[in-house]
Amino acid sequence: MTVTITAFERSPDGGKGLARDTRVRWALEEVGQPYEVRLISFAAMKEPTHLALHPFGQIPTFEDGDLALFETGAIVFHIAERNVGLLPDDAKARARAITWMFAALNTVEPPILELVNARILEGDKPWSNERLPLVEDRIRTRLQQLSIRLGDAEWLDGAFSAGDLLMVSVLLRLKLPGLLGNHPNLSAYVARGEARPAYKRAFDAQLAVFTANG
Amino acid sequence: MTVTITAFERSPDGGKGLARDTRVRWALEEVGQPYEVRLISFAAMKEPTHLALHPFGQIPTFEDGDLALFETGAIVFHIAERNVGLLPDDAKARARAITWMFAALNTVEPPILELVNARILEGDKPWSNERLPLVEDRIRTRLQQLSIRLGDAEWLDGAFSAGDLLMVSVLLRLKLPGLLGNHPNLSAYVARGEARPAYKRAFDAQLAVFTANG
Repeated sequence: MTVTITAFERSPDGGKGLARDTRVRWALEEVGQPYEVRLISFAAMKEPTHLALHPFGQIPTFEDGDLALFETGAIVFHIAERNVGLLPDDAKARARAITWMFAALNTVEPPILELVNARILEGDKPWSNERLPLVEDRIRTRLQQLSIRLGDAEWLDGAFSAGDLLMVSVLLRLKLPGLLGNHPNLSAYVARGEARPAYKRAFDAQLAVFTANG
Repeated sequence: MTVTITAFERSPDGGKGLARDTRVRWALEEVGQPYEVRLISFAAMKEPTHLALHPFGQIPTFEDGDLALFETGAIVFHIAERNVGLLPDDAKARARAITWMFAALNTVEPPILELVNARILEGDKPWSNERLPLVEDRIRTRLQQLSIRLGDAEWLDGAFSAGDLLMVSVLLRLKLPGLLGNHPNLSAYVARGEARPAYKRAFDAQLAVFTANG
């Protein structure tokens, strides 16, 4: 049975790999699971056919036979749970790795999504210049806390896990705004993630879509 | 072995149950797991002792013997995975319930957190009145999509699950701003959650702390 995911037909970020299908591609590459991609236009994402798969009209989705999932974190968890390489065998270490998955998505990413909204949806508003530093400060607080916890470790808790995969993916959104710069250990952590062969294959696969479709 | 969670020593919301320990209390009540609560002050949350448990200096945490977890979603999942009542037995239904857990926390909650920040952290800013409707519109989009998916079903996917527990908890943040009003099916969904005996016990337990400590 072939796994099929959905991804944007045209890259919204010029091939930088920040669309969430890269996270799912990365997880599939880490565990060596082949997959097919169904490209979908921004218009088609809001059509009933896609909304039946993804009630919030986004990508990625995940189909494996008659199982259909949406929501990146859940898809990455599903892949991690059914394959070797993304979650530790030890029950306690596994629970801690899952903790980092949720921490990436529910504690670290929300202020970063605020910044994305502030720039993309409110960049032309009269308050934008005055407000952006406030939003960035909320991110800085989280980065400071994360930097302290990571210390000089390679990954967040022992071996590389789905928690690191999601945390690195979330932090990658901050490369361009340059917010990682104050924390060399976080920059190095993200670079270690990007250096993984599985990440490179995932990144190149989404870039190939951009190169082909613009 | 007794489970111990942490909660605010003083309720930041006047006993409305919106602090995240209520979500964990609710999960523990659903599965019938007794627990102890260690109350913690806002100052102590930023001290090294607590930061060792929770790197982002928040509540709740979860301790069971030598296993220590943080991050509400991860704690609820841990409870759901090790007990009966919060995740279906069928593998596919289980994966879909987990999808709703992540959807609640990473798709529905982030715009709601933006509204919380807009009101609490930026309520005195000159842009507040003009900006709030924009933030609320982003929530309305999500509510509309969620309302369509829920339809006239009792819960999001079959029987009540940890996905519903988290989604209801997230939506409860919108009761006071009155944003649920346009979607009677979502209001009824939240009311069904609040009517569960386990939710009532969890709500009363956090309220008792507020009543005792103010």
